[in-house]
Amino acid sequence: MYIILVYDIEEKRVGKMLKLCRQYLNWIQNSVFEGELTEVKLKELLYKAKDIMNIDKDSIIVFKNRQEKWLDKQVIGKEKNDLDNIL
Amino acid sequence: MYIILVYDIEEKRVGKMLKLCRQYLNWIQNSVFEGELTEVKLKELLYKAKDIMNIDKDSIIVFKNRQEKWLDKQVIGKEKNDLDNIL
Repeated sequence: MYIILVYDIEEKRVGKMLKLCRQYLNWIQNSVFEGELTEVKLKELLYKAKDIMNIDKDSIIVFKNRQEKWLDKQVIGKEKNDLDNIL
Repeated sequence: MYIILVYDIEEKRVGKMLKLCRQYLNWIQNSVFEGELTEVKLKELLYKAKDIMNIDKDSIIVFKNRQEKWLDKQVIGKEKNDLDNIL
């Protein structure tokens, strides 16, 4: 299953959330991730995410698609650089 | 065409970009928008967006899908509130 995940998390919690999401998905923009996940792995990720979030203040939106080929992606401006792989 | 647009824009330019994107799409999270746009309208939006952006520092990612029904959306945490319609 192809996943796009975007979060809006207060700064003090964002480091933890970034670290978590990068264990499951590819980081493509400041607060945006994409990748292939099974339904079980997605549940696991969201279970852990809820532990980090303040449900009243933070939010996560997940878009799910059975087939990535139905989605075109276009990037304008700065692409995320290779530093991401080191962090 | 169903569009998801996410931006990563420096704070001093973000107000302008928000205003622009809201003329074309629905604002669903801090820097995330979705909606139906024709190819022509999307080009128009991106043309105006490039005028606002600093191409070396900012970025926009657009996901395009011919059919929204191929996409499931799941929101965890705070939903954007009605204030958005007033702003």
